[in-house]
Amino acid sequence: MIDRKEKILKSLVKSRANWLNGKGPLSNVVVSSRIRLARNINNIPFTSRANKMELEKVFKIVQKVFNENAIFSHFNHLLLDKLSPLEIQFLTEKNLISRDFIQMNNSYRSCIFNRKETLSIMINEEDHIRIQLLSAGLQLKKIWKAINEIDDEIEKKAIYAFQSQEGYLTSCPTNLGTGMRGSVMLHLPALVMQNRIEEILKALSKIGYAVRGFSGEGSKAMGNLFQISNQLTLGLSEEEIIENLIRLCKKIVIQENNERKNLFSSVRKELEDRTWRAYGLLRNARIISSTEAMALLSKLRFGVELDLIPKISTCKLNQLMQMVQPAYLQMVVGRSLDKLERDLQRATLVRKELGKYI
Amino acid sequence: MIDRKEKILKSLVKSRANWLNGKGPLSNVVVSSRIRLARNINNIPFTSRANKMELEKVFKIVQKVFNENAIFSHFNHLLLDKLSPLEIQFLTEKNLISRDFIQMNNSYRSCIFNRKETLSIMINEEDHIRIQLLSAGLQLKKIWKAINEIDDEIEKKAIYAFQSQEGYLTSCPTNLGTGMRGSVMLHLPALVMQNRIEEILKALSKIGYAVRGFSGEGSKAMGNLFQISNQLTLGLSEEEIIENLIRLCKKIVIQENNERKNLFSSVRKELEDRTWRAYGLLRNARIISSTEAMALLSKLRFGVELDLIPKISTCKLNQLMQMVQPAYLQMVVGRSLDKLERDLQRATLVRKELGKYI
Repeated sequence: MIDRKEKILKSLVKSRANWLNGKGPLSNVVVSSRIRLARNINNIPFTSRANKMELEKVFKIVQKVFNENAIFSHFNHLLLDKLSPLEIQFLTEKNLISRDFIQMNNSYRSCIFNRKETLSIMINEEDHIRIQLLSAGLQLKKIWKAINEIDDEIEKKAIYAFQSQEGYLTSCPTNLGTGMRGSVMLHLPALVMQNRIEEILKALSKIGYAVRGFSGEGSKAMGNLFQISNQLTLGLSEEEIIENLIRLCKKIVIQENNERKNLFSSVRKELEDRTWRAYGLLRNARIISSTEAMALLSKLRFGVELDLIPKISTCKLNQLMQMVQPAYLQMVVGRSLDKLERDLQRATLVRKELGKYI
Repeated sequence: MIDRKEKILKSLVKSRANWLNGKGPLSNVVVSSRIRLARNINNIPFTSRANKMELEKVFKIVQKVFNENAIFSHFNHLLLDKLSPLEIQFLTEKNLISRDFIQMNNSYRSCIFNRKETLSIMINEEDHIRIQLLSAGLQLKKIWKAINEIDDEIEKKAIYAFQSQEGYLTSCPTNLGTGMRGSVMLHLPALVMQNRIEEILKALSKIGYAVRGFSGEGSKAMGNLFQISNQLTLGLSEEEIIENLIRLCKKIVIQENNERKNLFSSVRKELEDRTWRAYGLLRNARIISSTEAMALLSKLRFGVELDLIPKISTCKLNQLMQMVQPAYLQMVVGRSLDKLERDLQRATLVRKELGKYI
């Protein structure tokens, strides 16, 4: 199963993750939902303190689970040791592995993921096992049901570190208990335009939620995309955490939609102008940075969400937000590119991809 | 001949001046050339000191010249008293009358011009008669020959104020002597980009040349367009003034072309990007100010001049530079427009006009 590396990476370059399809509940504001579970194998030290043999043991246990279970038979498996820094960066852009995973240098780090790129399991990250499931729109309950089943399948063959008092034991105490983090990626251009985003982000932080950018932890909020996730993992059940997060996101969606209505009725022409200018630049620029591309794609997306421009789908725009990232561009051409080369390649790609539509 | 006002204005809205055709010598840098002669009728006080009867007398003398001469038979004649402020502003945008002419409030101000909009005669402006001839490219000698003939035709029926020592007498001493001003409109984006324009403008001013913007005296240099004209009218013959101006313009053209070559070899991709971005914005914006339109048209023109974008002609861009002006836009729709309405109308017009090409 391991080591058809070239083939796997090649197909990853061509494929577009299913969770970027722009569908699902509240998809005019909610790009995607995600749940991640942190698990560790009983009686093996956490990754940061484990020796090579212990890491290998974790690796083999998880590998066995996936090799022996029919539902995982079509999954891909990549060992990070065998990947170049560019290829690893590409996996983070694809949201298959975390940014932290790049920084680590322990052996037997690997990543298992399905063809749709919705499910991925990191082995020997901060915790022995990190399971992540992504879906388009606000779909946390459905995701929870599905990831819970996968978790059960793994647990059949691996004994998790678990204590009845604390719940799942995790390397970092912030993940203790459920070991669960739910997160929702929201597109909030109207709240940004109306200068209301800061107040909302502050309030979220006060009630125990973290806000991150498009590419997860450590990334800046580009393209008016905000990923909101629970900080609290202890003292509440998984269902309660999810319920709270859903309620919160729905409130933010209502506020975003209200501001959109306000803008639409007061400055509709200006919004049309912003939308078409973004389109004009994306369709014509010859050099474009990723930050600018994200900002323009966000403006265009806003126009699509408000029905100000025809024929462009949010699915295409979601996909483009991944495709304009630096590692993807280099994977497409199969070699490393300097800044100007990337900016040229990015402009060419965006022009071509959007050209298919209008 | 006078007073088919509505008809004349209507056809002026539709027609495009011949001197904007983007042709003629050195037309990749030189938009147009212009010569203006200042003349006064003998034994009648200058306009500023003339009474109504005297102004009427001037008006009638000139009118008679044009009525009785077959070569002027197809000329249009508009009395400024009968025009609205918007219509007068429209004539200045068309370069048929001067901006000063708007500010004046004496009677019998009028303007005679040909169908091609290359020749115009202002009556009772600062001087009794101001004759102006425009042509595309660097064509001062040809213009001089033509305007000299027209001047002779007028002189057959009107006795000019002339003294053998001082030459033609003019209201303002700066026009004394030849009463001639030659001017050349240059598009100098490379000298602007390379921060060399200031030094050149300073040098020009030191050696007795004035520099103005696109719309003549008092207008800012928009769209990297600079109109250079002689200040000196006395002590040199018309031919010498013209020779000097031609020599000077050729030098500037060489410098502009050198900087274009430098830019082309060092930052070609960036120039392509600038060009296509300008095109993308002009083809897609829904709201656009005249200043922005001029700046974008200049960038696009630069791309056309460097052959970085196909199918767009400098003729079309020259015409658009007039068509994006505020009075023209209002004349097209036949009513006054506020700022936002103009910006919307301008964007619609530019989109449509450029859409015909690519």
